[in-house]
Amino acid sequence: MDNREISVIGSGSWATALVKILSENDQKVNWWINSQDKYDYIQKYGRNPKYLSSAELNVENLNLILDIKEAIRISEVLVVVIPSAFLHDALKDLPKDIFQGKIVFSSIKGVIPEFDQVPAKYFKKQFDLKYKDLGIIAGPCHAEEIALQRLSYLTVACKTEEHAKFLAEKLECRYVQTTHTDDVLGMEISAVLKNVFAIASGICHGLGYGDNFQSVLVSNAIQEISSFVDVVKPIHRDVKSSGYLGDLLVTCYSQFSRNRTFGTMIGKGYTVRSAMVEMNMVAEGYYAVKSIMVMNEKAGVEMPITEAVYRILYQKITPVVEMRILSKKLT
Amino acid sequence: MDNREISVIGSGSWATALVKILSENDQKVNWWINSQDKYDYIQKYGRNPKYLSSAELNVENLNLILDIKEAIRISEVLVVVIPSAFLHDALKDLPKDIFQGKIVFSSIKGVIPEFDQVPAKYFKKQFDLKYKDLGIIAGPCHAEEIALQRLSYLTVACKTEEHAKFLAEKLECRYVQTTHTDDVLGMEISAVLKNVFAIASGICHGLGYGDNFQSVLVSNAIQEISSFVDVVKPIHRDVKSSGYLGDLLVTCYSQFSRNRTFGTMIGKGYTVRSAMVEMNMVAEGYYAVKSIMVMNEKAGVEMPITEAVYRILYQKITPVVEMRILSKKLT
Repeated sequence: MDNREISVIGSGSWATALVKILSENDQKVNWWINSQDKYDYIQKYGRNPKYLSSAELNVENLNLILDIKEAIRISEVLVVVIPSAFLHDALKDLPKDIFQGKIVFSSIKGVIPEFDQVPAKYFKKQFDLKYKDLGIIAGPCHAEEIALQRLSYLTVACKTEEHAKFLAEKLECRYVQTTHTDDVLGMEISAVLKNVFAIASGICHGLGYGDNFQSVLVSNAIQEISSFVDVVKPIHRDVKSSGYLGDLLVTCYSQFSRNRTFGTMIGKGYTVRSAMVEMNMVAEGYYAVKSIMVMNEKAGVEMPITEAVYRILYQKITPVVEMRILSKKLT
Repeated sequence: MDNREISVIGSGSWATALVKILSENDQKVNWWINSQDKYDYIQKYGRNPKYLSSAELNVENLNLILDIKEAIRISEVLVVVIPSAFLHDALKDLPKDIFQGKIVFSSIKGVIPEFDQVPAKYFKKQFDLKYKDLGIIAGPCHAEEIALQRLSYLTVACKTEEHAKFLAEKLECRYVQTTHTDDVLGMEISAVLKNVFAIASGICHGLGYGDNFQSVLVSNAIQEISSFVDVVKPIHRDVKSSGYLGDLLVTCYSQFSRNRTFGTMIGKGYTVRSAMVEMNMVAEGYYAVKSIMVMNEKAGVEMPITEAVYRILYQKITPVVEMRILSKKLT
């Protein structure tokens, strides 16, 4: 048994789900908590007060830490789970060499908006990490179902197979099965795009489109993912695997999907601002679509669904008009 | 405008949906109706009394016919939509040459159980039709949403592009978009398999598996479709297209899917017989899985989901046990 310590940096729903799995697996988890109140509550009740509060955590294996620097320094393996829009703010004042010698897995599923970069690229550029020490944890997995202990599957991606295997083993339990791959960038971009498509899915649902249409939208979405990742990172991959297609499906079809919920509100006529206030959660796809549009200036891939979502969210085109135009382009 | 007449042979939900589209498109439809009661009701009220009765039909363009021979002889183009389990019974006493000179499209989505054959193969063998005159109408499309006039997409497949285009045009309307392809056999087998997977999806839902698991099941299912059709009919195709993946999605995820509903009942503990009686509809996947198992004796493809459904439905293996075993094989 490899006893390297693991720090989890982040305390939202998904971070809490990962902490639950790791701590139940008899793994000591150093968990960065960003407020004293939360710290005290978790210590006392074994639950995160604000996010995924239904999940019971094994407090015996938790070492709560209020100082992010200490939380990073204490472990060799880091799991970073901060919403992409807040990541740079959380990390920007840290010493540039703080991640040296560490293995950093992100499970962020968004683009860092200040740089239009996926997390792996961001860590490489900002903290001079090597790709061999960077990995991701990908779905298909909603935190809410981890709390319910419903059988779920995770994919751990890292160029270094040994690192991927290490974390995959730590995450494997009675209700979680894992696989691993080396396609970090492809899976990360796919995870980012799926949130954009879940917003599209929600918008169409909000507008009253039915199941027949949704199935066509999602089929076109996985083709858009396939085309885009094949240009950005041209290696052999099967996007029909769970880590790509499955993640798209669970995000587009599940009621637990906040991006879909956000889209549904937009489709029903909410403004972006009012939908966000109402939800009190981050819809990663909102930021992602803008960055993907920037990334695609270079890639030049045909992405009609992505463009439709962008126009609705950023150029104030009416959803009903934009989706009618999009529907003519789908096959 | 090509004014060839079209006969629709069948009067279930899907047949009624196709008749609705065609008749609203100013196409004269010769419609075989298998009972005087139904005939009178449709003539008087413009609705099918038993199936999809919410759909209004354009009676002016309907020519109801009680004699199946006459209904076949009167048109050059036939659309056959009889549940696969009843097809041979309906056609077996007809003259062997009755389909000569006709273009026959099936929209059956099942296997003819007496022969373990998909419809195109059945028509070729039993009525000596050529593949060039055989086609199919594939989804992703639930009849119920056609009745609701919700935007839907159909794929028409035929080796002869002209035939495919002809029918695709006739089916295109305000709420239906069409595409065409020449992959008759691949799309037909995919349409058959998706019903088996919808049963699997329902069983797991009935057992309490959640959205995370469903997304993994469906991702593995499209891979199983891909592997099987590539062995049975090895041509280049993209199973991520709507006609394959979309059809699978709408069948696995929609509450309108009778195969999924059937599976859910099995998962909840109904016997096959009681589930069928309760539903009063045919779950095509029940027959399909048996024939696919026969077809796969030759093809030799690894099909863990198909095999699990077969064992549950025909070998009385408890769903909870079989699905636990299956879950270990999924990735």
